[in-house]
This record gives sequence, structure tokens and C-alpha cells, in this order.
Amino acid sequence: MQIVITGGAGMLGKKLAREILKRGALTGAGGTPVPVDRIVLFDNIEAPDIPRDPRVSFIAGEIFDAALVRRVIAGDTGSVFHLAAMVSAGAERDFDLGYRVNLDGTRAVLEAARALARPPCVVFASSLAVYGGADMPETIEDGQAPMPQTSYGAHKTMGELMVSDYTRKGFIDGRSLRLPTIVVRPGKPNLAASTFASSIIREPLAGREVVCPVRPDSVMPLLSPRRATAAFLHAHDLPAAAWGWNRSLMLPSHDISVGEMAEALRRLAGEDAYRLIAWRPDPAIEKIVNGWPRRLDARRACAMGFTADSSMDEIVAIYIEDDMKPVEG
Amino acid sequence: MQIVITGGAGMLGKKLAREILKRGALTGAGGTPVPVDRIVLFDNIEAPDIPRDPRVSFIAGEIFDAALVRRVIAGDTGSVFHLAAMVSAGAERDFDLGYRVNLDGTRAVLEAARALARPPCVVFASSLAVYGGADMPETIEDGQAPMPQTSYGAHKTMGELMVSDYTRKGFIDGRSLRLPTIVVRPGKPNLAASTFASSIIREPLAGREVVCPVRPDSVMPLLSPRRATAAFLHAHDLPAAAWGWNRSLMLPSHDISVGEMAEALRRLAGEDAYRLIAWRPDPAIEKIVNGWPRRLDARRACAMGFTADSSMDEIVAIYIEDDMKPVEG
Repeated sequence: MQIVITGGAGMLGKKLAREILKRGALTGAGGTPVPVDRIVLFDNIEAPDIPRDPRVSFIAGEIFDAALVRRVIAGDTGSVFHLAAMVSAGAERDFDLGYRVNLDGTRAVLEAARALARPPCVVFASSLAVYGGADMPETIEDGQAPMPQTSYGAHKTMGELMVSDYTRKGFIDGRSLRLPTIVVRPGKPNLAASTFASSIIREPLAGREVVCPVRPDSVMPLLSPRRATAAFLHAHDLPAAAWGWNRSLMLPSHDISVGEMAEALRRLAGEDAYRLIAWRPDPAIEKIVNGWPRRLDARRACAMGFTADSSMDEIVAIYIEDDMKPVEG
Repeated sequence: MQIVITGGAGMLGKKLAREILKRGALTGAGGTPVPVDRIVLFDNIEAPDIPRDPRVSFIAGEIFDAALVRRVIAGDTGSVFHLAAMVSAGAERDFDLGYRVNLDGTRAVLEAARALARPPCVVFASSLAVYGGADMPETIEDGQAPMPQTSYGAHKTMGELMVSDYTRKGFIDGRSLRLPTIVVRPGKPNLAASTFASSIIREPLAGREVVCPVRPDSVMPLLSPRRATAAFLHAHDLPAAAWGWNRSLMLPSHDISVGEMAEALRRLAGEDAYRLIAWRPDPAIEKIVNGWPRRLDARRACAMGFTADSSMDEIVAIYIEDDMKPVEG
């Protein structure tokens, strides 16, 4: 069986590929493990640290190139993890490219999946950015109506709607995960408005100064890359009956203020690391971040076996363990 | 000022055009009435009873023909009423054409509107078909999360998301109305799964037999064409501040069982008319209709000045008054 990961050169895409390689098999449509023969990582940028494994190949291209996507999601592709996206601040800056990548791209993925002889499992990376609006409650529950306040959030909501519609028609077996902010992301800051939430831990740990563009009392729901990767695979392996008719799911999170995040850094790395954070609120970033959910009550996901990190200390420890030593092939 | 009505050859499109002609002006961006110089009706089928008025022109084409739509929504177009759509049962039958008409078509309209020198007012005809799902409550309130169970419902939800996103970016001043089932529709049955709700009144009134494909205890939220037309114009004329950040609105309705609808026919047209209804449930239609909302509590719309019909007798009387005599010019 072939697995395709779009956005495969991204942080989560690579971690997901490594985890699948480690497991060697994924649960197939019949509910039994099927050996993974090939993992195709599809992305528009090549990363230097693609897992080196004979089962892994990398294909470069744009996700909205429907003909190319159809050639990639082909043959005995049994599962697609659709992670490719233009993130929040990026899609705010380039409206047209945002729609092409996030809307046309998702449609290209779904159309390619639909063209396969056997309906594949499609796991779609959605986001808490689907929520928003002036009357958003302090804590988001499962029935909360999406009300995106960014183009990115609108695209993710539209993507979920298509995943559900293609699933209902029997074209795919789709599952959409509304991801909290992923922290701590290794590497460099990206164009996501939330990128600072990783930077304020990662940069001081490396001895570098960092600017935090929001106030310490901003509360954010977080999920570590390790648990996000596990969530993608758990979402994939659950039988269709566990999902039922509702294919969109808000994941559980660890909800914490930015100030408390910094306190965890102080506890684990000391006063000198903590002092590398410069608090300089940026109204544009604050407006986006404060429009996002603060706390989640993800009961349905918990009942389905998804789990949250238990503390900020655990989240930082996962980063140190998984990403601060050299990654093996 | 030019007004464009997509789906302009349809039942609501023509009624809307007649009402705008009668008024002669629409509220412009500045809040003052602006004379309507031209109304362009755009549709893929020509209707024999397009209003005959020097201000009205008809352009035939497909709504997903982005280049054509851009030539139509041009010049001094100040307002667009986007009613063109492939309806529920139609979009279930032809999946690909449904996406082209309802998703690509809406995007073409929004892109053309965005290209105008001045952001126009765009009123989008959405639908109660955005709601659904096994855990839908008996009565839908304003905060209910969309959970479409048809492609048509998914397309309408995606259309609303784009209308909101384009509005947030300042490209248009958009307003989306979630329409209840429009009853009584004149003319012939269409491909909407709900078409019977009009047929069971219209056909017996014309002395013709009719099949009702759902059971008498099915409850549906209804709105007369006259009030729907008034709602489009009220939605248009309200200042942007009355809409605020939430540009999607569930309209108020008269909620009634199909059996009670038939009783109104019996009261108004007698036993012979009533006996022309043959009750023959069709599982495919029942499945779609019973997946739709039954009752609405549209408080926000009521507070904004939108109104529902007061009784089924009123709804039937509106049909007799507006549509059973020849339509003037």
C-alpha cells in the first residue's frame, strides 16, 4: 500500500512519515494492518531532512496542480494525509494564492482520491481557526458553529465540508481534525500568526532572543507535535463506525496563557533563557490570535481516544527530546 | 446603477426584478436611494415571462463561466443578487456539475464583484439545507452549527463562508440569507427535493392530481415567495452596521406539517381539491426532507426586521393573488 502525505516536507509531515516508517503498517479499510510499501511526500519546497528510507520518495509540485496531484495520488494509494496549506498570516497577505492552495488544492486532493479504484482514507488537517466571531464563548464545545475570521479559517471550514461531502457520497473515507496550535515547532518561524508560541520556547532554548507579539494573558490551546502525529494516526486507524456521520473533530488541547508558557521555560531553562523573551505586542498579530478560541472542551475526541498533553513542562520536554538532538534518517 | 440578478429567469429572480422595477430605486452604499437604471437577469435558461421593461435585459450563460460573469457584473453594478444554483436533488444526481454551478459559480460571482471599482452589495441565497445531522435539535436556533447532509447544503455553506470572507476583506458588502422552503412556487416542479411542498397546493388548485412523496407528519419551515422577495430587498437595504461581523442569517418561517398544509388546501379549495393529493412516500425524498430542519427560532432575523407568513392560509392566498392570474409585463 502507498501512503501520500501532502505538505510532506513540513514539520508534521516529516514526523508523520517517520512514525509510519517505524510502525511499518497502517490499518486498512478491512480493519487489519496493511504493510506500507511506499510513502510519497508531496510538497512545494524540498526539505533537507526528508527521512532517508527506501520506502520514501519526494515529489515537488503545487497542491493546486490537479493533474500532478492525480498522478501522485494514484495506483495502490490506500491513505492520504492532507497537510499541505498556506497558513493564516500568509493567506491574509496573498488572498488569491491562499484560495488556490487551500481551496483548489484540497479539491484537487479529494478529486484524485475519488479517482482511485478503492475509496482511500483521507485525513485532513483542519484548524481551530475555523472558530471565531465576537460572540465566541470562553470555552469551545463540540457543537460550536464554525465562524472563521481569517481566509485560512474559511478555507479549512470549506475543506471539512468537502471531506464530509465526498465521504457521504462514498468517494473517500474522510476524517478532519481541528488542530490546536502546535507547540513547540522546531526549525524557523513560519507565516502562521501563531508561530511566536513556538518561537518563545525554541529560540531562548537555543540562546537566541525572541519577540513575543502578544500579551502574557493571551490564552491558547496547545498540542505537541508528538501528540498531533499520534492523533493523525489514531484518526486514520479508527474504524469508520467510530466516526459515524460527523467527520469533523476538535482535538483536545492543553490550554494555557502565554505568560504561563514563558514560566515553564523559566522553570526548565532558567532565568537567563526567560529574559531572552522581549514582550512587544503587535496589534495585527494580537487581533488574529485573540480572535481564536482560548479553551476547548473536546469531549467527543476524548471519548474517541484522543489525548492532550498534560502540562507545558511536558510539551517543552517533548521538544527537547524529539527535536533538540539530531534527527536520525 | 445597474443591478445583476443571477438565476434571474427563476421564480424568485423574476419576482425580485418586478419588485425592484416597481420601487425604481435601491438603497446604495451611502444609505440613500439610488435609481435603478438597468437590471440584468443572468441565467442558463431563458424564461418566457421575463419582465418586459426597457430597464431589463437578459443574458444567457453558465454561472461558472468566470469570464462571462465578469463581463456581466461590470460597469456601475451596485448590487448583485446571487440566486443561481443547482438545487438539492439535482446536485445529488450530478456531483460534478453541482460543484461547478454552486461552488465555482459563486466564486465567479464574488470575483467579478471584487473586480468592480466600488465594492457592491451582494445578497446570496443560501438555504436551510446547511443544517442537518443525526443530532440536529427539533428547533434550530441562530447559533446552530451548519452540518449539511447534501452536496447542495455543503455548497451553500461554502458560499456563505466566501461571502463572509470577501466581506471581511472589504471586497464586497455581503449578506447571506438561509431561506426556508419557498411555498407556493408557481410553474412546474423542479429538481429540489422539496418541490412537492408547492406541488401539493398548486396542482390541486389547477384541478390536477399530485403525488405527495412524504408522510403527513413531516414538518417543514415555509416562506412565501412574496416574503422571500421582500427579505432579499430588506437584507440589501439594511445598513452594514445592522449586519455587523456575522453576514449569514437564518430567516423566520411558518413551520407546519405537510398534513396541515393539505388541510389548508381543503379549507380553501374544498374536498375535491384535497382528494387530488395521493400520499405515496418515496424513501429517497423522505430521507432528504427528514434530514432538514423542522422548526426555526430565528430571533436575530426577527430583531433585524425580517418577518414570516402568519399562516398556511395566508401562504396559499398569496399564491392565488400573485401567481394564479396572468402576470403583467
